[in-house]
Amino acid sequence: MNITDLETPALVVDLDIMEANLRKVADYGRQHNLRLRPHTKTHKSPLLGRRQLALGAVGLTVAKVGEAEVMIKAEPPELLVAYPTIGARKLARLMEVAKQTQLSVALDSIEAATQLSGAAAAAGVSVGVLAEIDTGLGRVGVQPGPELVALAQGIERLPGLKFLGIEFYPGYVKTIDEAAYREMERIGGLLAACKSDLAARGIEARIVSGGSTPLLWHSHRIAGMNEIRPGTYIFNDGNTVAAGTCSWADCAASVITTVVSTAVPGQIIIDGGSKTFSSDQLAGGGSGYGYAPDHPELTLARMNEEHGYVKTGSSGHCFRIGDRIRIIPNHVCAAMNLHDRVHGVRGESVEQTWEVEGRGKLQ
Amino acid sequence: MNITDLETPALVVDLDIMEANLRKVADYGRQHNLRLRPHTKTHKSPLLGRRQLALGAVGLTVAKVGEAEVMIKAEPPELLVAYPTIGARKLARLMEVAKQTQLSVALDSIEAATQLSGAAAAAGVSVGVLAEIDTGLGRVGVQPGPELVALAQGIERLPGLKFLGIEFYPGYVKTIDEAAYREMERIGGLLAACKSDLAARGIEARIVSGGSTPLLWHSHRIAGMNEIRPGTYIFNDGNTVAAGTCSWADCAASVITTVVSTAVPGQIIIDGGSKTFSSDQLAGGGSGYGYAPDHPELTLARMNEEHGYVKTGSSGHCFRIGDRIRIIPNHVCAAMNLHDRVHGVRGESVEQTWEVEGRGKLQ
Repeated sequence: MNITDLETPALVVDLDIMEANLRKVADYGRQHNLRLRPHTKTHKSPLLGRRQLALGAVGLTVAKVGEAEVMIKAEPPELLVAYPTIGARKLARLMEVAKQTQLSVALDSIEAATQLSGAAAAAGVSVGVLAEIDTGLGRVGVQPGPELVALAQGIERLPGLKFLGIEFYPGYVKTIDEAAYREMERIGGLLAACKSDLAARGIEARIVSGGSTPLLWHSHRIAGMNEIRPGTYIFNDGNTVAAGTCSWADCAASVITTVVSTAVPGQIIIDGGSKTFSSDQLAGGGSGYGYAPDHPELTLARMNEEHGYVKTGSSGHCFRIGDRIRIIPNHVCAAMNLHDRVHGVRGESVEQTWEVEGRGKLQ
Repeated sequence: MNITDLETPALVVDLDIMEANLRKVADYGRQHNLRLRPHTKTHKSPLLGRRQLALGAVGLTVAKVGEAEVMIKAEPPELLVAYPTIGARKLARLMEVAKQTQLSVALDSIEAATQLSGAAAAAGVSVGVLAEIDTGLGRVGVQPGPELVALAQGIERLPGLKFLGIEFYPGYVKTIDEAAYREMERIGGLLAACKSDLAARGIEARIVSGGSTPLLWHSHRIAGMNEIRPGTYIFNDGNTVAAGTCSWADCAASVITTVVSTAVPGQIIIDGGSKTFSSDQLAGGGSGYGYAPDHPELTLARMNEEHGYVKTGSSGHCFRIGDRIRIIPNHVCAAMNLHDRVHGVRGESVEQTWEVEGRGKLQ
């Protein structure tokens, strides 16, 4: 099938760019002795999880139990649920997953640990636990120091659980500048203190899992961190370009749209809006809802659910109804969650189509 | 099943409030001789489309062909695709729908009309056409005057098409104030001019379809308009409350979430973020991503995909991990598109669960 035969809006992935992205990060991890446990929320596909494992990932990461149930199909030797799982029904489902792989969960409260322990003990499985610490994002995570020690000690005492180490997410660092370098150094100090606090109580933090997409290529500068969980790197998007992590040429995923109206001068309407791209703005600020690599002069300035308002600005090109425009989304994880299927392409050829099996797994 | 048995995040609809909302608008339409052709993009369910028809809607409205293919299951006597359908494959699919109901399409270009005519003639069906005019939104639509006349004359000449009238969407009116009253009067004048321009060429605009959610209860003030296509009214949301169209007590749809972290003082994290609610901010400006009717002092201040950051502010309530909080989304259409299923509740009882069959129908 040719790419022009796809009905739009169609989410396509350039398979060569994706493969190069996967290899680059796998090589980086190997080079710096960083365990790679990719977050699969970006691609939501066991097919691609399997490829990540084949290239050397030690395991996979998910957020929700429903995602774990899907991603187990990739047969990961280790699966991390990087989100506190709360509630008896959900935990019972998660224990079924724990019977099929080495499961671990990141959590930040003794309440979550106690619930998990109860479920693990009832199911007769052992679940690894990472204690989530907050290095400054202010989202989840206990404070390094006595809070972390108390949580780790609590986990150690609970049946069915095995304390593995600590996890953090410095999502507040948006670009790499002097302040970012200082922050990486500060985090390294924090991690050393955490480890020695725990060691003083006879608790070993074997895994120190962290990082973020903007920090990806600088992960080796965070002293003491030995695992990374990048997600977006498989496709990249407007956010990773804005963060300086990659260039537009490294963006594997884009949406092919069709011009459906040219009624307003200086503007064209494409058949993809927030239902196709999500309403996510650029994480670090900045305008526009996507980037047209073949027409960089265009601005996807505004969206309704089914309408993308593209300002043609200084474009010398005369767009006509039926023309196709390829758009790289700001946030590919959110866009992926809006599509039932994705088309893998090489040049003009559609080589395979896969279901986004982990889409919409909210629970 | 009790509502407490639902795993979260769970999208629930209060069936009594929904029924009252449906009746109120059906009654309003009858009272003012306004044809009601609800936009089903809000609920995306043939089950609910059927209820709208039972209460007196003359037909249903969709945006995309995939939605038409789903909504035909409600057996609407008339189905309007309020979006220009471009592309041979899509049009071939749409003609299959046209064989099952009285189909009409709103469009704003002779290119779209020509494509539609080709498909209709090939399939041996007759398709109604509404010419979309732009009253000031600057999205789609020809200008009233010579542009409209040329489009209508073009449609009249094309085989397989039947010109039915005009459609418009004044989405730029966000609240009802003096300016909104003046705008409704201005639109009434525009519509009269459009009809007389067309009549002078022997073309009758039998249907004049328009309005918007903020203008809903004022639709009868727009002289010459004889059809409304409201969508959000079935559930209502933060936007309809902000527009003054309803109160929080009229909001039928909400998401039940669970507190998963209380690590940061003054804040709780709930298990629903942008993947549950969408990132849509309030259409008319204003902060926050949702409203907690049982705890109005809370602010859903920020979201990541799976994390909702709720500021507890002056709340005297001490929230614990596992507590449930019900949140009314800013934009219920976008939220509905993120959920595979919806639970209809009466009080604490889950009375029925239905699939969001029209979810993700982008094409």
